[in-house]
Amino acid sequence: MAPAGAKKGILERLDAGEVVIGDGGFVIALEKRGYVKAGPWTPEAAAEHPEAVRQLHREFLRAGSNVMQTFTFYASDDKLENRGHTQRFTGEQINEAACDLAREVANEGDALVAGGVSQTPTYLSCKSEEEVKAIFKKQTDVFVKKNVDFLIAEYFEHVEEAEWAVQVLKSTGKPVAATLCIGPEGDLNGVSPGECAVRLVKAGAQIVGINCHFDPETCVKTVKLMKEGVEKAGLKAHYMSQPLGFHTPDCNRQGFIDLPEFPFALEPRILTRWDMQKYAREAYNAGIRFIGGCCGFEPYHVRALAEELSPERGFLPAGSEKHDSWGSGLTLHTKPWVRARARRDFWETLKPASGRPFCPSMSKPDDWGITKGHADLMQQKEPTSKEQLNALFEKATHNA
Amino acid sequence: MAPAGAKKGILERLDAGEVVIGDGGFVIALEKRGYVKAGPWTPEAAAEHPEAVRQLHREFLRAGSNVMQTFTFYASDDKLENRGHTQRFTGEQINEAACDLAREVANEGDALVAGGVSQTPTYLSCKSEEEVKAIFKKQTDVFVKKNVDFLIAEYFEHVEEAEWAVQVLKSTGKPVAATLCIGPEGDLNGVSPGECAVRLVKAGAQIVGINCHFDPETCVKTVKLMKEGVEKAGLKAHYMSQPLGFHTPDCNRQGFIDLPEFPFALEPRILTRWDMQKYAREAYNAGIRFIGGCCGFEPYHVRALAEELSPERGFLPAGSEKHDSWGSGLTLHTKPWVRARARRDFWETLKPASGRPFCPSMSKPDDWGITKGHADLMQQKEPTSKEQLNALFEKATHNA
Amino acid sequence: MAPAGAKKGILERLDAGEVVIGDGGFVIALEKRGYVKAGPWTPEAAAEHPEAVRQLHREFLRAGSNVMQTFTFYASDDKLENRGHTQRFTGEQINEAACDLAREVANEGDALVAGGVSQTPTYLSCKSEEEVKAIFKKQTDVFVKKNVDFLIAEYFEHVEEAEWAVQVLKSTGKPVAATLCIGPEGDLNGVSPGECAVRLVKAGAQIVGINCHFDPETCVKTVKLMKEGVEKAGLKAHYMSQPLGFHTPDCNRQGFIDLPEFPFALEPRILTRWDMQKYAREAYNAGIRFIGGCCGFEPYHVRALAEELSPERGFLPAGSEKHDSWGSGLTLHTKPWVRARARRDFWETLKPASGRPFCPSMSKPDDWGITKGHADLMQQKEPTSKEQLNALFEKATHNA
Amino acid sequence: MAPAGAKKGILERLDAGEVVIGDGGFVIALEKRGYVKAGPWTPEAAAEHPEAVRQLHREFLRAGSNVMQTFTFYASDDKLENRGHTQRFTGEQINEAACDLAREVANEGDALVAGGVSQTPTYLSCKSEEEVKAIFKKQTDVFVKKNVDFLIAEYFEHVEEAEWAVQVLKSTGKPVAATLCIGPEGDLNGVSPGECAVRLVKAGAQIVGINCHFDPETCVKTVKLMKEGVEKAGLKAHYMSQPLGFHTPDCNRQGFIDLPEFPFALEPRILTRWDMQKYAREAYNAGIRFIGGCCGFEPYHVRALAEELSPERGFLPAGSEKHDSWGSGLTLHTKPWVRARARRDFWETLKPASGRPFCPSMSKPDDWGITKGHADLMQQKEPTSKEQLNALFEKATHNA
Repeated sequence: MAPAGAKKGILERLDAGEVVIGDGGFVIALEKRGYVKAGPWTPEAAAEHPEAVRQLHREFLRAGSNVMQTFTFYASDDKLENRGHTQRFTGEQINEAACDLAREVANEGDALVAGGVSQTPTYLSCKSEEEVKAIFKKQTDVFVKKNVDFLIAEYFEHVEEAEWAVQVLKSTGKPVAATLCIGPEGDLNGVSPGECAVRLVKAGAQIVGINCHFDPETCVKTVKLMKEGVEKAGLKAHYMSQPLGFHTPDCNRQGFIDLPEFPFALEPRILTRWDMQKYAREAYNAGIRFIGGCCGFEPYHVRALAEELSPERGFLPAGSEKHDSWGSGLTLHTKPWVRARARRDFWETLKPASGRPFCPSMSKPDDWGITKGHADLMQQKEPTSKEQLNALFEKATHNA
Repeated sequence: MAPAGAKKGILERLDAGEVVIGDGGFVIALEKRGYVKAGPWTPEAAAEHPEAVRQLHREFLRAGSNVMQTFTFYASDDKLENRGHTQRFTGEQINEAACDLAREVANEGDALVAGGVSQTPTYLSCKSEEEVKAIFKKQTDVFVKKNVDFLIAEYFEHVEEAEWAVQVLKSTGKPVAATLCIGPEGDLNGVSPGECAVRLVKAGAQIVGINCHFDPETCVKTVKLMKEGVEKAGLKAHYMSQPLGFHTPDCNRQGFIDLPEFPFALEPRILTRWDMQKYAREAYNAGIRFIGGCCGFEPYHVRALAEELSPERGFLPAGSEKHDSWGSGLTLHTKPWVRARARRDFWETLKPASGRPFCPSMSKPDDWGITKGHADLMQQKEPTSKEQLNALFEKATHNA
Repeated sequence: MAPAGAKKGILERLDAGEVVIGDGGFVIALEKRGYVKAGPWTPEAAAEHPEAVRQLHREFLRAGSNVMQTFTFYASDDKLENRGHTQRFTGEQINEAACDLAREVANEGDALVAGGVSQTPTYLSCKSEEEVKAIFKKQTDVFVKKNVDFLIAEYFEHVEEAEWAVQVLKSTGKPVAATLCIGPEGDLNGVSPGECAVRLVKAGAQIVGINCHFDPETCVKTVKLMKEGVEKAGLKAHYMSQPLGFHTPDCNRQGFIDLPEFPFALEPRILTRWDMQKYAREAYNAGIRFIGGCCGFEPYHVRALAEELSPERGFLPAGSEKHDSWGSGLTLHTKPWVRARARRDFWETLKPASGRPFCPSMSKPDDWGITKGHADLMQQKEPTSKEQLNALFEKATHNA
Repeated sequence: MAPAGAKKGILERLDAGEVVIGDGGFVIALEKRGYVKAGPWTPEAAAEHPEAVRQLHREFLRAGSNVMQTFTFYASDDKLENRGHTQRFTGEQINEAACDLAREVANEGDALVAGGVSQTPTYLSCKSEEEVKAIFKKQTDVFVKKNVDFLIAEYFEHVEEAEWAVQVLKSTGKPVAATLCIGPEGDLNGVSPGECAVRLVKAGAQIVGINCHFDPETCVKTVKLMKEGVEKAGLKAHYMSQPLGFHTPDCNRQGFIDLPEFPFALEPRILTRWDMQKYAREAYNAGIRFIGGCCGFEPYHVRALAEELSPERGFLPAGSEKHDSWGSGLTLHTKPWVRARARRDFWETLKPASGRPFCPSMSKPDDWGITKGHADLMQQKEPTSKEQLNALFEKATHNA
């Protein structure tokens, strides 16, 4: 599986017009497997339960991922210490362990290692550019020491903070990708996707795009707006998308975080493999060549991307040994009516039922209308107090 | 974690009134992870990809499972060779590898190993009792050699075949559990759940119940009918339920196999952890004490069972280190409106949206009306031919 | 349209194997038109606003109805004076006016006049057989005086009260039909549909069946059970069904009254004309020959029944001058894509969307578990007091 | 109810800040009652079945309508003779009869008569301004002869044609209102709502707004855009909205005509009376003072508008004698759990179920992408031929 000789870098691949398949979502998948706590969403499992993280990396590799992202999401010290969260490991230990795991599995196949940083409580609490950049610098130092192949600034709601991150990452000399978690309406300050993309490219990102917060349909639409902006500005970039594995037609500007189902009742929104094939095709047609996923993307979702684009790429992923195209593995089923489902037109047109007749198909997202700078968004090291919590409960009831 | 000294056996636990938490579903979970092929659904991964199977066992153990079922579902030679399915491993190799993996992980905690057999193509093809029992015997010999703690005959649609299985398992002297994959309407020959249970107890099963094919609500209802039957007959038994992790209000007698969403579009039906807590409570209230899951049950679903019943059991599973009760981990979230969801009444009353406004909430199951003995149900070693397949496609279109 | 000479009676028609088309629902239709108050549901409009009642009769006649039911539902004195309801008209005035209107319109076409009585608050309040029968007698006297063509005892939840009604009606010498508003589970005392039907036939009803409370699918199913009961008892009867024009898959034993949508939010449940054609066919196939509707049936719904059964009957209703079969009037539409809908397979297979993505597809019915004899069901002449109402609100909130 | 002395004119009322309640939809209501054919949607019932049209006028008057629109929708000669449609009456006869009926009922209460013209097949077939205006002139001559109180140009998809209509109507010296059937995206040529409104005001309309094609929420939103446009242009106008009585969240630019449910399966989309109260309040808050309805608005919907705005207007409509505020008439119901629904918070928060678990909540509208000038949109006097129809069926199947 692994190629003889040195691997081609991320920019070499994209410059050559290759499709690069990203990986899926770690925090949601590992939460379900028992290794990540919803709420803080921090990646201490890299140090605490390396076998679980390694296994998930392997599954994504087997599914066709060309990129092993270090499991360092929210692994900045300010986040690790937020709201009474206590850790047995330092940020440095977690970041180092995550790099080692990603490299170990990347070496088992044709994958690159990408070190990642994401938005910080420090920025949300209105600290200075220097303070925020110092946070990114600390993680980046580990990525340089561990010699990752390239860097990703991902999951930013404010393009300003993303620019700062790109500037820090860029100083390493490694290729830099940058993705925002915004939709077609733009970042939380109202900067349009096109303008965001231009600013990221100018800050030094060679690859720009969208990750998390919205479903594939919305993300592809938003990346298209970014591409239009970059091209209109006479600039050049590669494009990537790593959307949610959840349907979010009912989201407002802030994405799935605001849906009442987040994070413990998102199940009915999970995409099928067929939804994923549709996404891969649409992303490809939109000119996106770095195509992966974020929260909700399980290994079989990534495999579906690789399978849909196998005609363009010329090969199937290792994991397809256990998955025949468009359900044709069902020809081996014992029941004849299930064998009768072994065909593309059946799965492509099926409108899957929820099995939940007492539930609606869309929700009203929370819409508290508060943004960076609001007292409720200031971060604190102490746990949320009972009084704070009661005040929130009251507010929630009032808003409902 | 692991107890000092020898573990209590399954009957000792149940006789003492303890709650035994079962494990979740292997074939569906490993299909999504890339190690099982939908269609044949055979467990060769035990021999081929042991690290993946070991990891899933570990996750269930961490979630609170007291039973590691050997990953030997459909590992009978007649099934392994069905319809052109080719294997690099013999049935014996797979069964042995599965026993070793289950034992290895069981030793890491307070879990027992259960060897399992399930329904056979041989029975469906109307072969004799001797031929069917020979199939079970072959698997059972491995379980005896590997010294599993107890045995489960599971996933039977016809009580007659389950009785034969129980008789073979019983001959080993080990405790025997037996579960059918039927609903309140009874087995595929129309034998009522109560009568089925009586026959299984009389055949030698000490634990009887239901697994797979229906959602928790339906399974608990069916086990209640079994319990009523057993008690009315003046017999005694322990009861178990291992339902689907999917909502199936629209199923007919044959269960989720007949839903058009099976097996590649079941996502919107996946139960939330809160659905699981409800199930655990209802099962407990119905007098069921061996409470686990089947297809669709992920580790976090099993953890939800253990958390719901922690007041009765007096402890939480290891995996709860990453999961605070009823969403209270959300007090650590950065957004105040998400912190406002850190309360039981929010999650207990939420009706989760599907995010799929173009989809219905229920489906019409296939209903071909053919049963054991029909030509289309006869098994064959050769692959399903193109002609056979086209005939099925036509039939499906006609029935739709 | 109107036949020369005297009309054939209801029994002559049914004995000859003719299909008799009933009318639709008056109280719901006239509530929407502004002439009936939801709550009391009494028919004083017959005296107060005769032009509105006459017009609705005409629309049903034009739609194909062969029966003009007098608008005398709940026109018993005990109901007219219930809970502070005040009337400008006596029960006698209302009943007489209703007979005159029905006769006037019946004379315009091939329709018979049927006088109707329905269940009484007196029975619900546990009064004696004599008292209840006296109520029916008072209405029946008007029907005799006005010489209606036949009589219907309809909308009974307890077969016992229906038997009493049939006995009173029977004493007039006119043909008697009797319909209960029950489902397959039987009447509110748990008497099965088959047993109910036998008792009604024995009491003297020549036509038995079901009206109101459940959707067509459920009603046809229940009438089938009645027919089985009658045939098993070696008796003979004609069968009728007058179901709701609302989908009620989520009802329990008491029917649509218990749905939270009753009576002011039933709109999304209204049947289409295509649903009605399906109902007419299924009723016909079940051996039902008196086929009409109840609450929710608008004139176009009745027309759909007459159109579906026009091959059997040999003619179309007058109203079909404005309705071509299976949407073919759309060939005259200005937009080509609407003209493309002028075909049966389009309408027959369409699954109509609700346009309500924030709403579920099913509701949980109220289930207070109280029956005849409970204090809350005792009727009173005084208005419901504020204290009584608050007690009910609390109970409702508690049950939710 | 009717005022002594002459009535105030429409502009006097609006200038005085009064709320004017419009009427509801005639073609859909009369189609269901059996007097209008779906497809041509022409109003020959005014001459053919005057009693049915009169009754509907009366119901709207009783519900609170201050405007009796003449039932002259699509009563232009080019439409009456379209696609093989044959009439027993001339356009003139229909228009005259409609004026007489509207005046007769208006005289029974405080209502004005409005003569209405709407878009023409002639325009769609690319005929000249003179030809189109001649069509309008012919209808307008009748309105002048019958001395209606004011004129409405309604149901225009192209602002250009609406301007022509306004110019013709304006020449009579009577007050002129103009409504387009467009959404927030603008007319079918892409002219924005704001620009459309400015052009209509400049053409002479004193009242501008939206009717038909979209649900209340969308219409109010669009009228807001019109108002912004008019105010930005430094002009003045009164505003009106007469939306659908159907939920249409899934519509594209052309409105409900493009939904597959149009016109024979719109039932699940019908608004409740509570939806209507919400609409009335939102329209009022948006500065709209002529508030009515179009297709799908039944009398009880109009009554709900009048009830919601009764605090502002100081009185209730006559029809409220049969409707107590917010369900309080249910205090007279015999069942206690129904009496428990006699409260505003119950109805205001209820999410009504569709009772259709096999149906989706939204549909994909047709989107043929053809506009004025396309061959398929050219009108013809001959019936749609079988060949034309088959070509359309193929196209529809292909697009699906």
